[in-house]
Amino acid sequence: EVLNRQSGVAAVRPRRSVAVRAEAAPINPEVRKNEEKVVDSVLVADLSKPLTAYCRCWRSGTFPLCDGSHVKHNKATGDNVGPLLLKKQKE
Amino acid sequence: EVLNRQSGVAAVRPRRSVAVRAEAAPINPEVRKNEEKVVDSVLVADLSKPLTAYCRCWRSGTFPLCDGSHVKHNKATGDNVGPLLLKKQKE
Ligand code: FES
Ligand code: FES
Repeated sequence: EVLNRQSGVAAVRPRRSVAVRAEAAPINPEVRKNEEKVVDSVLVADLSKPLTAYCRCWRSGTFPLCDGSHVKHNKATGDNVGPLLLKKQKE
Repeated sequence: EVLNRQSGVAAVRPRRSVAVRAEAAPINPEVRKNEEKVVDSVLVADLSKPLTAYCRCWRSGTFPLCDGSHVKHNKATGDNVGPLLLKKQKE
């Protein structure tokens, strides 16, 4: 078995495989892939809760809000990402 | 040449390679890797500008702020990520 099982690509395609590094991989697997660039706006005056968490891991089921999915992502990958917290007041 | 050149790992280690998918890779290569989880807080009352962009691509040199690095990341990977914009007023 000499296939490159990590990529699912046979090892006989060296050119393509060399170019793919961890740093050059997409980080958003599923969120609004029909959009060229996913940008969200928050009008901060409209924030209703004292604290609102916004996703930066691209794994939330409620994107752009954080639903805690970063925990699973971090555990699965050894990553250390987390949300941006918007606060209306200093506690 | 039967090495898995995409991962830099020899193809003789099938167990580890099978577990690593695009969805199970870290998305933050460099930002504050000494922290277990990178969480940032914004006190929205302290926002000085009408619009402030916060990074969600983990490539910004001014993280947690966006410095436009998502453009290079998207071009290099075919990804479609972008910042979260915090706005003080409706234009
Ligand atoms: S779910 Fe993405 S940062 Fe929490
Ligand atoms: S630099 Fe990361 S979203 Fe803009």
